[in-house]
Amino acid sequence: MKLIDGKAIAEQIKLEIATEVNHIIAKGGKRPHLAAILVGHDGGSETYVAAKVKACEVCGFKSSLIRYESDVTEEELLAKVYELNKDNDVDGFIVQLPLPKHISEQKIIEAIDYRKDVDGFHPINVGRMAIGLPCYVSATPNGILELLKRYQIETTGKKCVILGRSNIVGKPMAMLMMQKKYPGDATVTICHSHSTNLINECKAADIIIAALGQPNFVKEYMVKEGAVVIDVGTTRVPDSTKKSGFKLTGDVDFNAVAPKCSYITPVPGGVGPMTIVSLMKNTLLAGKKAIYQ
Amino acid sequence: MKLIDGKAIAEQIKLEIATEVNHIIAKGGKRPHLAAILVGHDGGSETYVAAKVKACEVCGFKSSLIRYESDVTEEELLAKVYELNKDNDVDGFIVQLPLPKHISEQKIIEAIDYRKDVDGFHPINVGRMAIGLPCYVSATPNGILELLKRYQIETTGKKCVILGRSNIVGKPMAMLMMQKKYPGDATVTICHSHSTNLINECKAADIIIAALGQPNFVKEYMVKEGAVVIDVGTTRVPDSTKKSGFKLTGDVDFNAVAPKCSYITPVPGGVGPMTIVSLMKNTLLAGKKAIYQ
Repeated sequence: MKLIDGKAIAEQIKLEIATEVNHIIAKGGKRPHLAAILVGHDGGSETYVAAKVKACEVCGFKSSLIRYESDVTEEELLAKVYELNKDNDVDGFIVQLPLPKHISEQKIIEAIDYRKDVDGFHPINVGRMAIGLPCYVSATPNGILELLKRYQIETTGKKCVILGRSNIVGKPMAMLMMQKKYPGDATVTICHSHSTNLINECKAADIIIAALGQPNFVKEYMVKEGAVVIDVGTTRVPDSTKKSGFKLTGDVDFNAVAPKCSYITPVPGGVGPMTIVSLMKNTLLAGKKAIYQ
Repeated sequence: MKLIDGKAIAEQIKLEIATEVNHIIAKGGKRPHLAAILVGHDGGSETYVAAKVKACEVCGFKSSLIRYESDVTEEELLAKVYELNKDNDVDGFIVQLPLPKHISEQKIIEAIDYRKDVDGFHPINVGRMAIGLPCYVSATPNGILELLKRYQIETTGKKCVILGRSNIVGKPMAMLMMQKKYPGDATVTICHSHSTNLINECKAADIIIAALGQPNFVKEYMVKEGAVVIDVGTTRVPDSTKKSGFKLTGDVDFNAVAPKCSYITPVPGGVGPMTIVSLMKNTLLAGKKAIYQ
């Protein structure tokens, strides 16, 4: 069993990005610039955005944080999105989700110029990904692909079972793993709350990508000897022994499952650290105008 | 075994559309208008476009056919697309594929205003479909969903195996069958040329959707007793007993497979007739501005 060290890979990629940014600057190029809009003071969102700003520093990016109180109107937010769309200094930007209920997240996402949509949530980027065209791939799926690549995990012809069909993980992951390229070319099965045969699908899987948000859902008896297990779950389970009062818990019963695996991601330290790095990768692509002009 | 009569369903839907158009006209509304651009004189394309124009008549739509010789430049074609985008009388339009090699099909598709993209090929429509938002769904997948609905075939929790991962059938079909709605909510597996376990996947399937373009690929031993089999294949196999010199042949070895099925589509007369009807349905939606304003 080999542990997939997302934290180490993430650090390595940030250094690679920083090196490339140094080259760009040395050649007289423009420093990539990521802007983030944060509405309100949700604890999780604050943490994520702070981590993104910090990652920008490490990568040598310029970053801008634009804050609004949670009573901001949809019109005000849209106006800012349009402003950032036009701002030539901003290469890419994100609107941290979730947004307050009086604001339509979908409307905001679709207002973002897809050429600056480094979160990869705009339908144009989702559609281009499905068709197999160059695009911004969203953070978590992108991070998983990167881990598979870095560990040179074979995917061609493998049975890849994806648990969960969310728009941000399960569905894009399915679309990516079925593309005619590496990582990809897998026989993809997507299971969800309505699946009646989930256990047998898992048992036959060469690769399991668990993104259900159900702590310890994947048990030892559901996993084939030698399987690759990617755990996307990050549920906060109360734990009085922790200073924070909770333990970040994956969708996989790690201790029981790990001994059967060829590769497995831990939680924390597996997929998690890769998500912010994916955003950095997209920001670099945006800065270089590598995908869209 | 019940035969899915695509031809009869298609005729029925065209009548339903014609009735609705009559109501629209009676209320002083606008007659839906579909435009089609046809480049060159490819036999297949001529036949399809002629059938689309004829279907428009039956449905009570206005139709316009715009023809170019195969030496038309990409610029000329793009100019026409932009003209149709702006033409308020045209509700939806299609550019018949394939196009001559000197023209980028993807560039043409992306130039079409997604609000008039009744073929559902624009990345915005593909992306919105993947996310589960209202959009124009492309013809063949849309037709298959309609058949499943009309025959009230259960899909929730069923194992649906899709053979083939083309951008126009396999991939969208996978995305649609995994959505949280009916038809959908299936456990979806997508198999293709690199799949090593295709036969076992098929054997376990409650629903098989074959879209490989390989005549008689699905054999009797690959199909579970009681399965639903949807055959998307339409390969022209030479046949001297036919006036045309060929026989339209599906991906399913029909005679051997049919007795095991609960439902099966024939070729011809199954999925085929539904594709043009799907385009008509999208044109009606466009005329009513039911999806986009």
